[in-house]
Amino acid sequence: MTLSPLLSVEEARNRILAGLHPTPAEVVALAEAWNRVSAAPLAARLTQPPSDVSAMDGYALRAADGTLSATLKVIGAAPAGHPFAGTVELGEIVRLFTGSVVPAGADAILLQEDATRDGETVTVNEAVVAGRHIRRAGQDFSRGDIVLPAGRKLTARDVGLAAAANHPWVTVHRRPRVGILATGDEIALPGEPIPPGGIASSNAHALAALIRAGGGEPIVLPIAADTEEAVAAVADSIVGLDLLVTTGGASVGDHDLVISGLRTRGLELDFWQIAMRPGKPLLFGRMGSVPVLGLPGNPVSAIVCSILFLVPALAKLSGLPAAPPPTTTGILGVPVRENDRRADHLRSTVVSGADGRLVVTPFDVQDSAMLRRLAHADALVLRAPHAPALPAGAEVPIIRLDSLGI
Amino acid sequence: MTLSPLLSVEEARNRILAGLHPTPAEVVALAEAWNRVSAAPLAARLTQPPSDVSAMDGYALRAADGTLSATLKVIGAAPAGHPFAGTVELGEIVRLFTGSVVPAGADAILLQEDATRDGETVTVNEAVVAGRHIRRAGQDFSRGDIVLPAGRKLTARDVGLAAAANHPWVTVHRRPRVGILATGDEIALPGEPIPPGGIASSNAHALAALIRAGGGEPIVLPIAADTEEAVAAVADSIVGLDLLVTTGGASVGDHDLVISGLRTRGLELDFWQIAMRPGKPLLFGRMGSVPVLGLPGNPVSAIVCSILFLVPALAKLSGLPAAPPPTTTGILGVPVRENDRRADHLRSTVVSGADGRLVVTPFDVQDSAMLRRLAHADALVLRAPHAPALPAGAEVPIIRLDSLGI
Repeated sequence: MTLSPLLSVEEARNRILAGLHPTPAEVVALAEAWNRVSAAPLAARLTQPPSDVSAMDGYALRAADGTLSATLKVIGAAPAGHPFAGTVELGEIVRLFTGSVVPAGADAILLQEDATRDGETVTVNEAVVAGRHIRRAGQDFSRGDIVLPAGRKLTARDVGLAAAANHPWVTVHRRPRVGILATGDEIALPGEPIPPGGIASSNAHALAALIRAGGGEPIVLPIAADTEEAVAAVADSIVGLDLLVTTGGASVGDHDLVISGLRTRGLELDFWQIAMRPGKPLLFGRMGSVPVLGLPGNPVSAIVCSILFLVPALAKLSGLPAAPPPTTTGILGVPVRENDRRADHLRSTVVSGADGRLVVTPFDVQDSAMLRRLAHADALVLRAPHAPALPAGAEVPIIRLDSLGI
Repeated sequence: MTLSPLLSVEEARNRILAGLHPTPAEVVALAEAWNRVSAAPLAARLTQPPSDVSAMDGYALRAADGTLSATLKVIGAAPAGHPFAGTVELGEIVRLFTGSVVPAGADAILLQEDATRDGETVTVNEAVVAGRHIRRAGQDFSRGDIVLPAGRKLTARDVGLAAAANHPWVTVHRRPRVGILATGDEIALPGEPIPPGGIASSNAHALAALIRAGGGEPIVLPIAADTEEAVAAVADSIVGLDLLVTTGGASVGDHDLVISGLRTRGLELDFWQIAMRPGKPLLFGRMGSVPVLGLPGNPVSAIVCSILFLVPALAKLSGLPAAPPPTTTGILGVPVRENDRRADHLRSTVVSGADGRLVVTPFDVQDSAMLRRLAHADALVLRAPHAPALPAGAEVPIIRLDSLGI
């Protein structure tokens, strides 16, 4: 196989994202809409508030009547949900509450604390101002207003807004179905017998969780043994997947079985060496209509590559804008060396400094086999190819891992 | 009822948190462990790597043999998962790959790219260094090491680490079951007939989503009409709940039905006026063993109070440390006025400024009835009681809403 020259992280990500398309829409109950991505704009089905309503507990009256020491006759009450049916005439007043519809004829609100009630009579203790404490019909939104756009990951507040706009159902992108294929004679599922010199399979389960965090539906395929036939057999499992992710079997050694195995079943692929550390080799291709992303087998490399490539891929598949992982700025707690030609992603702790800025300290050893250390990292410090040595206190771009749920 | 004097947000939160206890533990499959809170420390069940293993593709040999131009005899291969059973003697070499167990007798690795193979013979093109490119047994962790503590919200990386430590099951805190009671004659479920002057119920669904975001299991109770009997009937629904949240019916008006209704069924309560805006009135109490948190009925107040009180309550119930919502620092995009005696929570947009700092701009109108505006806010700017007027460019504490998934 011919290898392309080293690709940059950005170019690899752009090529992957260009090969992916948002999933089609489905309709879900409002109660299931949280954290889903809207697939259509949501128009309000009613006007909110539906009429002019009181913003306070008190009384509705004509502003002209609401002068200091005026005495007015209580002609009724309008609890929320029970509007007063009549009209407020001169000298009359109607009891109401926060959210009550302001009755016809009234144009002012006398606050409860500014009124003295005696039987069916109310005395005004503070002059009213016309229109004050009245929320106008449509202040929040009017029927037909687009209250939520398409392509938005719905928050709890958005769910409340959709409810207020009277939507029991919401149209969202189907969760991307992502198959996960781990390969290797040396791995076994946790709790199952581990072969001599072998290890418990961690990538499939870490990736499944990461896919959930990214809004996808993970489908963990059985581990494939290190034969072309075993890998090729996965081709029968990919019907209906939106993406197949493989881990392992993609290096330049004797065990490049993912490529050779899937090629026997029609894989068209790019195989890239990415100018990055950890995680140099990356596959991207397609088996029929199913895109295939091949991650390194090393657990740390697999997760770092997932953050850089799979999480953005999930966002694109989910209907969100294609974008790199969000970065922020940290202050180095220790000096870092000059970088070589490969973009580096230093596993680091983060603490808030006295001035509220984030102090990031890369671990002293960055061995890509150290999963425990990765799990306890708070951020990746991004080091561009050929980035110069930096002293403690220098600003560096970081990807925070905690905020990604990853 | 006697009202306590105005409580601060911090004191109210501390009182609520003091009344809550973590849920008991349950065992879940590793595949369900993501985003759950560990209830016990997790000790590694194996040593990782299990033996000294190669960090690279290449050959294992005795360091003394690995001199420039030496020629060695290939006596076998050790693919990952298939350790070489014999011992490497002088003049011998064994083919291996990343992750392969280093065979007995060998103490050095000859990299693949530094070797020339000719049939069963390998020539050394670069002298080896004893121990180099060998990952020692236990470099990541050793059997018995605590790899994850109790009380940790498990990330995708943690799930991978638990798998690597050979755990098919994980002990986590049960998701807190939180009942949600919305009250009011004026509200109807979205899509159902709305009473005259009424509105679609938004709080219950926003809170359900927020409870999911906070790791809880929401249970939406039927809407209670504005009668004591209807509210009291909810007492029959709270068996097995870890928390009951009510919205509405808790102000100082004529409709304080939550208090009077639940009191008929044994509610012991504190009723507080919190020195905050939006959302002054807050209930906290207990019906038998079930804590009760009463939020305002106004949707914006309900959500802001949820962020300040319910999200921390969910964390405590879930087994996480009791803590206020995380704040960060923003730079005001516009001046703000002096604050009065109530802590304010200004709904604001956030953009990243040129220097990477967050510029926060409060909306000009902060009406607590504007749910659409709340949904489109990125942050709450925290204004302490009596905080002075601040110019544009001043630093202010903010709660980011996007990062909370709320």
